[in-house]
Amino acid sequence: MLITDISTTECREILARNGFGRLGCARHNQPYVVPFYFAYQPDHLYGYSTPGRKIEWMRENPKVCVEVDEVSSHFVWISVILEGRFQELTDTPEFARERANAQMLLEKRMLWWQIASATGELQNLGEEAKPIFYRIQIDSITGHRALPDVIDTQYSRFIELEE
Amino acid sequence: MLITDISTTECREILARNGFGRLGCARHNQPYVVPFYFAYQPDHLYGYSTPGRKIEWMRENPKVCVEVDEVSSHFVWISVILEGRFQELTDTPEFARERANAQMLLEKRMLWWQIASATGELQNLGEEAKPIFYRIQIDSITGHRALPDVIDTQYSRFIELEE
Repeated sequence: MLITDISTTECREILARNGFGRLGCARHNQPYVVPFYFAYQPDHLYGYSTPGRKIEWMRENPKVCVEVDEVSSHFVWISVILEGRFQELTDTPEFARERANAQMLLEKRMLWWQIASATGELQNLGEEAKPIFYRIQIDSITGHRALPDVIDTQYSRFIELEE
Repeated sequence: MLITDISTTECREILARNGFGRLGCARHNQPYVVPFYFAYQPDHLYGYSTPGRKIEWMRENPKVCVEVDEVSSHFVWISVILEGRFQELTDTPEFARERANAQMLLEKRMLWWQIASATGELQNLGEEAKPIFYRIQIDSITGHRALPDVIDTQYSRFIELEE
C-alpha cells in the first residue's frame, strides 16, 4: 500500500463533497468521538445539534478534531484530518448573520425540513431542547491517500477468493 | 427519525462484525481522530500501528474513545461509542501471551501478510519503524439506533427525486 500526502486544495474538495465525518472533542483529556453532518465553506464547517454531551464538552473546551474519509477498500482510501475550534452561533444580534449563513448552507446540504423544524416549530420548546448552531474554525488540515502497490494487488486475489 | 438505545450485547456484536472504526485520543485537551482497523474480543479491541502521532499521544495519555457505525442513510444508522484505555503490548516477556493473542486475532480479521510483514521482515528495521501492537481495555460502551418515522418516510420521496 502506498500512502501519499494530498494537497490542502484536495482536502477542501473532500470536505465540500462529503458533509459527513467524525467530530472529536475532549474534556479532562478524555476524548469523545461522534458521527456528524456538516456544511463546508472555506475555513469553516457549519453544523447543528441538539443539546447534549458533545455540546457541553465543546463549550468547556473548544479544541476539536474532525476526520472525514472515503474508504473504497483496505487499499484504496482517502482520509482528511483537521484541527479547529468550536464556536457557538448563539441566537443573539452578534451572530445573526453567521447563524443565517449556517442555516442557508445546512439547508442546501441537508434535509431541509430538519433545519426548518429546528429553527421554526422548535422555538416553542424550552432552552434545554433547542437546537444549537455552531461553526468550526479550521486551524490546520492534512490529508492522505492510499493506493495499492504491486504486492497488494497480487495478494488481493487471494483475499477475494477467501471472502 | 426515532433514536433508541441499543443493548450492550448488541454493541458488542457490532464491534465483532465491523473491525473498522475511528479512534480518538487527546493531548493537552486537543483531540485527534483517525480511522483504524481492530479485532474485538470481549472487553478489548486489538490493533497495531506504525509509530506516529497517535501512538505518541496514547503513550502519554491512555484515555481513548472509539466510534464504530453502520450508516445506511440519513435515517437508518447504528453508532457505538466506547471509552477505554490504551495498553501497549511491548515485545517483552510480560506481554508475550497477549501479543501472540493480538497477532492471532488480527491475522484472522485483517490482511494476514500485513501482520506477517509487521512481525517478520520488519524486525530488521530500526525501533522507530517497528510496528506497535496494542489493546484497548473497554471501560464503558453505549450504542444508538436510528430508524425513520412517518414524517421522514414522507419527505424522503422528495429527497430521492431531488438527488
